Amino acid sequence: MKLTLPPRVSPAQFDAALKAYEGVVGKQWVLATDEDRDAYSDIYAPGPESEWPPSAAVSPATTEEIQAIVRLANQHKTPLWPVSRGKNLGYGTAAPRMPGSIVLDLSRMMKIHELNSELGYCVIEPGVSFFDLYEHIQREKAPLWMSVPGNGWGSVLGNALDHGVGYTPYGQHARNLCGLEVVMPDGELLRTGMGGLDGGHSWHVFPLSYGPDWTHMFTQSNMGVVAKAGVWLQPEPEASLQLTWDIAEAEDIGWVVDTITPLKTAGVIEQNVFIPSWLGKIVLMGQRKDFWDKEGAIPEWRVEELLKEHKLGYWQVQIRFYGDERLNRARADIVKQAFKRHLDAAPREEKWNRGDPVNQYDVTMGIPSAVALQMGDWVGGRGAHMGFSPVVPATSKHVLGQLKRSRKIIADHDVDFYASFTIGGRYATNINMLMYDRDKPIQVANIRKMFDALIKGTAEAGYGEYRTHLGWMDAVSATYDFNDGAQRRFNEIVKDALDPNGIIAPGKQGVWPSAYRDQPQGGQP
Amino acid sequence: MKLTLPPRVSPAQFDAALKAYEGVVGKQWVLATDEDRDAYSDIYAPGPESEWPPSAAVSPATTEEIQAIVRLANQHKTPLWPVSRGKNLGYGTAAPRMPGSIVLDLSRMMKIHELNSELGYCVIEPGVSFFDLYEHIQREKAPLWMSVPGNGWGSVLGNALDHGVGYTPYGQHARNLCGLEVVMPDGELLRTGMGGLDGGHSWHVFPLSYGPDWTHMFTQSNMGVVAKAGVWLQPEPEASLQLTWDIAEAEDIGWVVDTITPLKTAGVIEQNVFIPSWLGKIVLMGQRKDFWDKEGAIPEWRVEELLKEHKLGYWQVQIRFYGDERLNRARADIVKQAFKRHLDAAPREEKWNRGDPVNQYDVTMGIPSAVALQMGDWVGGRGAHMGFSPVVPATSKHVLGQLKRSRKIIADHDVDFYASFTIGGRYATNINMLMYDRDKPIQVANIRKMFDALIKGTAEAGYGEYRTHLGWMDAVSATYDFNDGAQRRFNEIVKDALDPNGIIAPGKQGVWPSAYRDQPQGGQP
Repeated sequence: MKLTLPPRVSPAQFDAALKAYEGVVGKQWVLATDEDRDAYSDIYAPGPESEWPPSAAVSPATTEEIQAIVRLANQHKTPLWPVSRGKNLGYGTAAPRMPGSIVLDLSRMMKIHELNSELGYCVIEPGVSFFDLYEHIQREKAPLWMSVPGNGWGSVLGNALDHGVGYTPYGQHARNLCGLEVVMPDGELLRTGMGGLDGGHSWHVFPLSYGPDWTHMFTQSNMGVVAKAGVWLQPEPEASLQLTWDIAEAEDIGWVVDTITPLKTAGVIEQNVFIPSWLGKIVLMGQRKDFWDKEGAIPEWRVEELLKEHKLGYWQVQIRFYGDERLNRARADIVKQAFKRHLDAAPREEKWNRGDPVNQYDVTMGIPSAVALQMGDWVGGRGAHMGFSPVVPATSKHVLGQLKRSRKIIADHDVDFYASFTIGGRYATNINMLMYDRDKPIQVANIRKMFDALIKGTAEAGYGEYRTHLGWMDAVSATYDFNDGAQRRFNEIVKDALDPNGIIAPGKQGVWPSAYRDQPQGGQP
Repeated sequence: MKLTLPPRVSPAQFDAALKAYEGVVGKQWVLATDEDRDAYSDIYAPGPESEWPPSAAVSPATTEEIQAIVRLANQHKTPLWPVSRGKNLGYGTAAPRMPGSIVLDLSRMMKIHELNSELGYCVIEPGVSFFDLYEHIQREKAPLWMSVPGNGWGSVLGNALDHGVGYTPYGQHARNLCGLEVVMPDGELLRTGMGGLDGGHSWHVFPLSYGPDWTHMFTQSNMGVVAKAGVWLQPEPEASLQLTWDIAEAEDIGWVVDTITPLKTAGVIEQNVFIPSWLGKIVLMGQRKDFWDKEGAIPEWRVEELLKEHKLGYWQVQIRFYGDERLNRARADIVKQAFKRHLDAAPREEKWNRGDPVNQYDVTMGIPSAVALQMGDWVGGRGAHMGFSPVVPATSKHVLGQLKRSRKIIADHDVDFYASFTIGGRYATNINMLMYDRDKPIQVANIRKMFDALIKGTAEAGYGEYRTHLGWMDAVSATYDFNDGAQRRFNEIVKDALDPNGIIAPGKQGVWPSAYRDQPQGGQP
């Protein structure tokens, strides 16, 4: 990819900045060739990668190096786009929001500072992947389980900071963060919570502060660079028990949610319950052309055939229990009784006891896997996807409304409908996977148009996304319109106070520093 | 109490400000007589109330009135000290940190905007007390339980915002807050989280934001005035079961904590487990003079006599389970088995089923009570208390260390030792109740000296307080010394950006706006 300079930076100034960065990290960790830029571009970009071009990448190995880089960035006015491992597939991968930003690649920061089995937490750097942490836990024989997202090659911290989810009792990953070490936009080092006490023992166990707590201002955020954090981990259960139901009809999701939510708020079900639609199973069985070889959405009659052929329900519900066998049994009985009111079929049951082999692909047991990546092959060519991700209250009314609305918009655009709902408590996140072949410009253009329509239709109904792709960060931000965008304006005030030169991740989640609010894609549309 | 003006405000300017406030709320809701000032002073003040004197109080009835008052405060440079119901006993009651601040009394804001039984939350204003909400829930026959602190006359929101705790599965009150409406220091209105979407349905169910989440920057905070918030409530359980053990020796707290913490992180125990020492029971039986009629701490031999006489252990552990009977039984069996390893005696068991009468004094069932207030009578005279409240990791090492350290400092000052530990998960809050008779200046002086020693000794060992009395807010803030007080400086940067005139709660938790950083008690010591 050809070089796109950061706004208002001349080639000479840019070269001077890179030279300065080389002084910090060494020549080999400042990456600025065309090939380097390709490596940090969005490989799933819905359009040409050149829409979100990095100018270079710089990769520090320590907190001190991050601090030095951030200070230099202020001098040289070269904005940084921090990524942990840069695997944010479907939302932009490693690519920056503002063209010409320099990717601050933290993947070399792979230290696991602490693994505390007694209290169940680890202290890690952003470069630690789910696989890395898993292997470390195994090596140490620590009685701890992780919570992992569908795809485990990304960063544990990066995922939690971007509000990622998993499918265990610790599935709301941002809520597991306890005690951050953050490089501020001026290069200063801040520790949140009890880390404010030098050498304090309670940093990674107490989730609040003396005074205001800042932990979550650094999630989905451009207010600082998280260099280290505590992450709570689940104690390894003595046993586990899983119930699986196939749920026949799309509309059945209504009673399913109304059954699960009260059991989740009452603490009977502890995990984040993931409910994927049938296509979630089929994408792992082959390529789209093996099931339907025409353009346009798979027609309803063929969907019904496929469900019959592969003995699938429209949805699959799996509920897993963790802990002492007696407890799992009591929980399972209660849940089965509740499902029985709507469904005669008994669930399949799968037991596990400590010491038994684990299913290497079971994310509900906290085992990282890359199986979900196979989805990339589904459409063929340069297969890619985006996620459309609104949040709705976890009741039938809201979930069925959301299902109907997005299903219609997606059908109107003649695109396959692949939805999932994850019940996280009082809310459900609704991920709509939108798959496309990047080699087919018409398909990509259609997806983009549809994405606009989804955001608009969903916001009009009173729901917002919790996360989105680089290209729609401003559009989604604009849907947060209460009091003329008070939330955006508030973000901007704090951003400008902390980062007057706007050098940390300008445009992240629609938050633009004043330094770049004049950019073509900056500010509100 | 005589009038103390806010810094740099002349009597004429002060009168003009009060006139302006009267224009907003009406004459009767601007309270500025000597008697009014008495009513807003710290009735438990460790010293003369005049150390923390309010100049007046103004009491709005609506969010719009708060906004108008805040805008006027900016014009008149009259700092406001927001209180919800002003019942923060032991930490300053309604009195302001900075002398001459005007108390912004929100106790007239008593609307319950929503009570959602399906999803388990309410949306309330700061004036709603625990008793108010309890009565509302009873009246509506809503199947919801609250989580209440020891004393229920305070504000539900005020308590959560000040990081208060209760003794149910929803006992970490700040973590129940979901979706705030905040009047910013410039009078603008901000809604956090999904409330950023005008009319958004997910405001009070999704605990994060699109972009940075600001919820907890408004807890223990002077960054804005919370006018309304969502609070998660527990679904009413079908049944409940409580186990009670008397624990003989002070040092037994070590194995007790090591037994409870893993069961809590594993989800077997859901509630915040409150473990009070023996004096917590005795203070409810009469006055100190009935048990020991001399000055100085009750001697060890007499403590032992009292424990025998009243059949008390040094500690009492009560663990309550909530939900389906089968689940409670399974949980109880696991916990009993774990205790059995250390203690032969079986626990007392107490069952409850939906429909049974409830014990009106049982805070573990979410029933607000004022029984704890009786403690005020213990020392006689104008009895009062302060709480010394450090946070420690919930393991025997840290808990026993903390017990030993504070016990020694308190014994060295010849004061009764009344400790409790509340296990909130990976951490325990250790509340040391320090009781004194305000009519005895020597006693009060001794308590103050001791409080300084407690803060110093605890910080040197690596632990910080999560909350403190007005008089020690700066001292505790100073113990958060990492990177030369980076947390305090960070607070100041954000504070100055949001509140250039410093009109919201100057000095709260040691956070001083630049406008008042020159005050005698402002800034760092």
